[in-house]
Amino acid sequence: MTTSELNLADIKKIKNGTIVTPLGFSTDGVHAGLRFEKKDFGVIVSEVPANCAAVYTLNSFQAAPLYVTKESVAVENKLQAVVVNSACANACTGEQGLKDAYTMRNTCAEKLNVAPHYVAVASTGVIGELLDMEKIINGINLLNPARSLQHAEAFQTAILTTDIVMKTACYETTIDGKIVTIGGTAKGSGMIHPNMATMLGFVTTDANISSDVLQEALCSITNVSFNQITVDGDTSTNDMVIVLANGMAENNTLTPDHSDWASFYEALRLTCEDLAKQVARDGEGATKLIEVNVSGATTHEAANIIAKQIVGSNLVKTAMYGADANWGRIICSVGYSGVTINPETVNVSIGDILMLQNSQPQSFNEEQAKAYLQRDVVIVNVDLQQGTESGKAWGCDLTYDYVKINASYRS
Amino acid sequence: MTTSELNLADIKKIKNGTIVTPLGFSTDGVHAGLRFEKKDFGVIVSEVPANCAAVYTLNSFQAAPLYVTKESVAVENKLQAVVVNSACANACTGEQGLKDAYTMRNTCAEKLNVAPHYVAVASTGVIGELLDMEKIINGINLLNPARSLQHAEAFQTAILTTDIVMKTACYETTIDGKIVTIGGTAKGSGMIHPNMATMLGFVTTDANISSDVLQEALCSITNVSFNQITVDGDTSTNDMVIVLANGMAENNTLTPDHSDWASFYEALRLTCEDLAKQVARDGEGATKLIEVNVSGATTHEAANIIAKQIVGSNLVKTAMYGADANWGRIICSVGYSGVTINPETVNVSIGDILMLQNSQPQSFNEEQAKAYLQRDVVIVNVDLQQGTESGKAWGCDLTYDYVKINASYRS
Repeated sequence: MTTSELNLADIKKIKNGTIVTPLGFSTDGVHAGLRFEKKDFGVIVSEVPANCAAVYTLNSFQAAPLYVTKESVAVENKLQAVVVNSACANACTGEQGLKDAYTMRNTCAEKLNVAPHYVAVASTGVIGELLDMEKIINGINLLNPARSLQHAEAFQTAILTTDIVMKTACYETTIDGKIVTIGGTAKGSGMIHPNMATMLGFVTTDANISSDVLQEALCSITNVSFNQITVDGDTSTNDMVIVLANGMAENNTLTPDHSDWASFYEALRLTCEDLAKQVARDGEGATKLIEVNVSGATTHEAANIIAKQIVGSNLVKTAMYGADANWGRIICSVGYSGVTINPETVNVSIGDILMLQNSQPQSFNEEQAKAYLQRDVVIVNVDLQQGTESGKAWGCDLTYDYVKINASYRS
Repeated sequence: MTTSELNLADIKKIKNGTIVTPLGFSTDGVHAGLRFEKKDFGVIVSEVPANCAAVYTLNSFQAAPLYVTKESVAVENKLQAVVVNSACANACTGEQGLKDAYTMRNTCAEKLNVAPHYVAVASTGVIGELLDMEKIINGINLLNPARSLQHAEAFQTAILTTDIVMKTACYETTIDGKIVTIGGTAKGSGMIHPNMATMLGFVTTDANISSDVLQEALCSITNVSFNQITVDGDTSTNDMVIVLANGMAENNTLTPDHSDWASFYEALRLTCEDLAKQVARDGEGATKLIEVNVSGATTHEAANIIAKQIVGSNLVKTAMYGADANWGRIICSVGYSGVTINPETVNVSIGDILMLQNSQPQSFNEEQAKAYLQRDVVIVNVDLQQGTESGKAWGCDLTYDYVKINASYRS
C-alpha cells in the first residue's frame, strides 16, 4: 500500500516531537569531556524493556560498539537503554576497544539498574583511537535522564560530530483507538553512504509490536530511507539504526495482518525518511538538499540505484553548488550506473524545467533554471520511459566547506 | 611475465618522445574557434593505413564520435587518421550530433586524401551541446600535419579541457633487431573514472602487429592502467583509447609467440601506465598523485577493486589534501569495497610509515607522516595478508579547486 492509498489523516507529524514524545521514554545528553566543550555523551532509556530492531553497517570493519550491541540484542531481542558517545568511533581498536565497549555498556547498566544485555552501545567520531574510559565513566555518572524537550535536545546535540543541526522527527497515528507515537533522532554529516544501515539513528515508539515484525519493517524501510542517502560515498564502520518499541500505547500487538498495520508502517517510514533527508541536508559543507526521483524503470531496485548514482556524483554535486543547470552530468551518471537503460528514451527535468526529452536536449531558460537551483531544496526528475517502477534518493551539494572540513578533521 | 623477469635494458623511456616519435606519424593542433583562444582541434596521421585497436567507455550514453569511430574501425580494422576536438563532447546530441560526427570524419578524410573509414573521430567537452560545424570545417582547413616536437605539442594542447598540463609518454624496445617505438598522449582531468576504457588516449607505434593481437593487448593493459585511475568517480560518455600500429619499424609480425612479445607488451603497458598516472596527477584541482598498492589479496581483481575504492574515497582524498595521516578512512574504504576480507589481518602504511598491523593501530610520528604527505607523490600500501595477489590504482587529492572548477564548468 502506498502513501496515497492510505488515509493520511490518520498520520500526523508532531512538530516539536522528539524521542521522548512516545510514552515511557526519557533521555539525557552531557559533556563528558571527550570534546573540548560540546556535549558528547548521552542515553535513551525506556521505563520498561522494549522490543527492538536494529540494522548495522555492512562495512567489513564493524566497530566494537556494534559487536556489543548485537550481543545485547541477541539475548532477548529487548533493549531498555542506548548509550552513545561522539568524538571517538571506537573502530579498528582491537581487543582493548571491545573491552572498553563492554565496560561502557555494563557501567551504564549498573547506573540505570537494568540488565547489561538490555543496553545497546553506539559510538561515532575518529576511527582508530581508543575511548578515554575515565571520561566515559564520568559521562555515565553525569547522566540524569528525564522526559522533556530540553533533555531530548541535550541528547540530540551530544551525538553530533561535524553535523551543524540536530535531527529529529516525530509522527503519530491511531491504532485500535490508541494514539501510537514514533519519535526519532539521527546524526550524520560525513562518511555517509549507508548500506543496509546508516550513521546513527535512534527511533522510539510506544507501539506494541514484536521484535521480529519490527525488524522486518525496519529493514524494508531502511532500504528506501537511510540507504538512499549519500553525502560522500563513504560507508562508515559505525552505522547503526535502532528502534525501541516499549508497548506503552497499549494497542493490540501489531502484525502485517492488523487493520492499522499500514498506518504504523507508513508513520515509521515517514519518521525514517524525514531523518534521512535531514542527514543529507546537513551533509558536510552542504548548502542544499538534492532529491532525485527516477521513474519509468523496470524495477524499483534499478530506479533506486540510478537515483543514488546521480545524487552521489561529485560532478552533479558541484554543479548544484554552482547553481549550474549542467544536465549532461545527470545523464552521464544514469549512463554509468550499471543499470541497463534505453539511451533513446530518457527525460530529465530539474524542478519543472524540462531539459531532455526522449534523450534530446530541449531549450530552456537558463536564468529561470539558475534561480531554481539556488533554492534550499532542488528536485531532479528522471523518467526512463521503460517501465512503471520508481525510486528516490537524497544527497547534498559538494562545496568548498566539504573540503575544508575533511582536510583537517582529526586536528 | 612481469617487469622484473624481463631484461629491462631492452625497454627505454624516450624523454622527449611523443606520438610522432614512432616512424611514419605526423600531427597538428590548431585553434578552430571552439574555445576563446586556446587550441581546440587536432589530428594524428599515419603515412600508411595502420592496424588499430580501441577501447570505449561503457557508459550507456556513448557519444556520437564513438559510434562513428566504431563504424570506421569495423570496416578493415585499420585507421590512418584520428581527428579530435575539445570544448564540445558531441554527446546526447541526437541525430544532428551523429550527422555532425560523420561530417567531421568525411571532411577530414577528404582533406587528407584517405578513405573515410580510415578516419576516427573523438570529441571532449560539454555534454548536450551541438558542434559548431562552421568552426570544425575551419579547423580542418587549418590543419597542416608534420613530424616535429612543436606539432606534437600543438596536438597535445588542442585536446585538453580543464587539464593543466599536456600528457605524453614514449618508450622504445628492440624487436628482431629493429627499434620499435611507442608514443602516446592523453587528456583527462574531470569526469575521470574509466571503465574498460578512459578519457581520450592516443597511442602510436611503428610496430608491425595485427589488429587482433593489438586489441587483446590493449584490453588487458587498459584494465591495469587507465581503468585503475579515478579523479571523481564519474565515468564519461566520451572515453576512448586508440592505438595505431603502422608497421614501419619492419619487425616480423608480433604475436604472443614472438620471442620479443614480452618486451613489446611491457613497453605498451609502460606507455599506458605512464599516461594514466599523468591524467590522475592532473586531476581537476589536484595537488598530488596518490598511488595505492594492495597486496596479499586472494585475486588480482579483488586487489584492484580495493585499490580503486581507496583512491576514489572523497574522505581519503580530502585527508591527503590536508596532509592528514587519517588511516581510519583508508581502512574504512577497504571495509566497504564489497570484497570479502579478513578484518583481523590488515596492514596499512603510508610511504614507509606503518600505521596498522594485523588491524591494530601502531604508534607513529605524526610530524614525519605530515611531511611525507606533503610530497607530490604519496604511496599508500595495504597488505591484506590473505593471499599472494596484488593490484594498484592511482588518483589525486580533492581540493577547493576541484569544487571551484566544477561549480562553474559550463560558464
